[in-house]
Amino acid sequence: MTSVAWVKGKVRYIDQTRLPAEEVYVETSDYRRLGEAIRRLEIRGAPAIGVAAAFGVMLAFDEEGADATATREQRLEAAIAFLGRTRPTAVNLFRSLERMRSAFQRLKLTDPDLIRRALLEEALGVQREDAEACDRIGEYGATLIPPNSTLLTHCNTGALATAGEGTAQNIITTAARQGKVSRVYADETRPLLQGARLTTWELMGRGIDVVLITDSTAGVLMKQRKIDAVLVGADRIAANGDTANKIGTYALAVLAAHHGIPFYVAAPCSTIDHGTASGSDIPVEERDPREVTHIAGVPVAPPGVHVYAPAFDITPHNLITTIVTDAGILRPPYEAAIAKLNAGVHATRGGST
Amino acid sequence: MTSVAWVKGKVRYIDQTRLPAEEVYVETSDYRRLGEAIRRLEIRGAPAIGVAAAFGVMLAFDEEGADATATREQRLEAAIAFLGRTRPTAVNLFRSLERMRSAFQRLKLTDPDLIRRALLEEALGVQREDAEACDRIGEYGATLIPPNSTLLTHCNTGALATAGEGTAQNIITTAARQGKVSRVYADETRPLLQGARLTTWELMGRGIDVVLITDSTAGVLMKQRKIDAVLVGADRIAANGDTANKIGTYALAVLAAHHGIPFYVAAPCSTIDHGTASGSDIPVEERDPREVTHIAGVPVAPPGVHVYAPAFDITPHNLITTIVTDAGILRPPYEAAIAKLNAGVHATRGGST
Repeated sequence: MTSVAWVKGKVRYIDQTRLPAEEVYVETSDYRRLGEAIRRLEIRGAPAIGVAAAFGVMLAFDEEGADATATREQRLEAAIAFLGRTRPTAVNLFRSLERMRSAFQRLKLTDPDLIRRALLEEALGVQREDAEACDRIGEYGATLIPPNSTLLTHCNTGALATAGEGTAQNIITTAARQGKVSRVYADETRPLLQGARLTTWELMGRGIDVVLITDSTAGVLMKQRKIDAVLVGADRIAANGDTANKIGTYALAVLAAHHGIPFYVAAPCSTIDHGTASGSDIPVEERDPREVTHIAGVPVAPPGVHVYAPAFDITPHNLITTIVTDAGILRPPYEAAIAKLNAGVHATRGGST
Repeated sequence: MTSVAWVKGKVRYIDQTRLPAEEVYVETSDYRRLGEAIRRLEIRGAPAIGVAAAFGVMLAFDEEGADATATREQRLEAAIAFLGRTRPTAVNLFRSLERMRSAFQRLKLTDPDLIRRALLEEALGVQREDAEACDRIGEYGATLIPPNSTLLTHCNTGALATAGEGTAQNIITTAARQGKVSRVYADETRPLLQGARLTTWELMGRGIDVVLITDSTAGVLMKQRKIDAVLVGADRIAANGDTANKIGTYALAVLAAHHGIPFYVAAPCSTIDHGTASGSDIPVEERDPREVTHIAGVPVAPPGVHVYAPAFDITPHNLITTIVTDAGILRPPYEAAIAKLNAGVHATRGGST
């Protein structure tokens, strides 16, 4: 199962809104349709969104037709702007679009075939690097998990959310392969139930003992001393370690701290936004009230009720035990650890270009 | 709107599982059907369950037919046993059944008409006393609410849950009539969505500015300093103040403590169980996994997924700022305050019988 792939000039993805009832794969050569897929959460998960966006720019490059008179650069910039407006919080989206823009800018005055090859290489690079980052996150993170662990996770951070085996969830599955995981509790994750629909589906498919709970049951399990660690992903990590992630993450972090339970955030370095100083600078998307008032199309609240529906919340760095990245495990003080990482990443990139 | 009423020898109740889509009133003269209604949450809320159970014993007394050969006492005891098995946590149920049993025992050797009048008086007494308790809880509790308050509540503790105007919710509506409430945030309260379906419906009907949120959004609002107080009801309060209430209450209490926000529990004295020493002695009901895996009949998780679905959790007394009862506002140490209440209640009852 691959969340998003480039197949013969088209983007192919599994429609995550239809899971677990149906496994529907969608192919499109229209970047606008791909943008809609991101907006509707047919494709979701910060790393998977980043990969999809890179492929979206490829689709725009290949496009002929209505805007054929526009210059190539205008067409690409329009696509980048369109894709950039789909979801505001996950930084992988913007980073990925920026990589595609840079690749284009480097070669834009050369032969179209050369540009196309470079763009495709860049997009496939985003995908490959994310898959490799997942592997490293799984390996690093699994070292944090003691034998006989019962773990709690929120939302979905598995293969569906990434181009590889996942972030927080790959730590779980890697530790499970090492025989260290007794059980996993999966928060259902209202409003869109990614935990109930996707995480249980992925973990059951891997033969892991997973138990579904409502989000507000997590605190009870912690009080009963049934949870050894909480693992979550991230949509954007600020320079000081503050982390934007699926709504409900903050409450889990407070509960974990109250019960003395380790709280691990896992994400590739591409999710760290060095340009954002702290969590209060991260834009938090608000979603359509219907995602709360309707479930599977059925209304569950009175017509016209007011709703507050942020998609994410910000967990302050002081509630995070460690941040597991593909470049290693970060520990407090995060500001220094992340700055060091930034310097290191720049040095490496500087060497390879 | 009356949650449960005695109408011409039958019990009439509003089916809360159909709200807010439909206002369906059900009438029955069969205590078994009434027990099913309690089990299925057509009637819910600890005080309303207590009232319904008292009327259920009346129905059993009036019953002729299949078990006409059984003695009156056997028939009543069978009904009390049946009704007592519907739900284990709310103590009002058992207290109410015990009151009906005592009323019967006092007069069982007398004239059937006399017994019937006494039983009906007792059942209507349970109902009337609960309505009066609601009024006093509203008045006492409203004194705790400062002007311009934004309040957060969980589940439903309004007219639907009681024989009167509610417990925690009556504090909200009373304070709102006094012009002190700017806004109310209502947790949707998974799995059965009593907040989304019932609390919003009741508060909108009373012209109060209510905003629906998913349960895990509460922590974010607290962090944003948007919540001035949290108000919840109770299904059973132990002698030390530990409180069983709808799943999710414990997490809210931890979050409120973390943010320095007052956390108020409101319940009639009939919800205090002096015979239960602490929260660990309160039986917590586990519900059918389908209540988590299906919403409005639609599956939202893979078939066969394991589920942990406790209906309630226990909030330790040290996380509760005050307990508002119809006998006044209780403050820590609760063990002493509750013991005093118990002595007082016994003294009053002793004087009136």
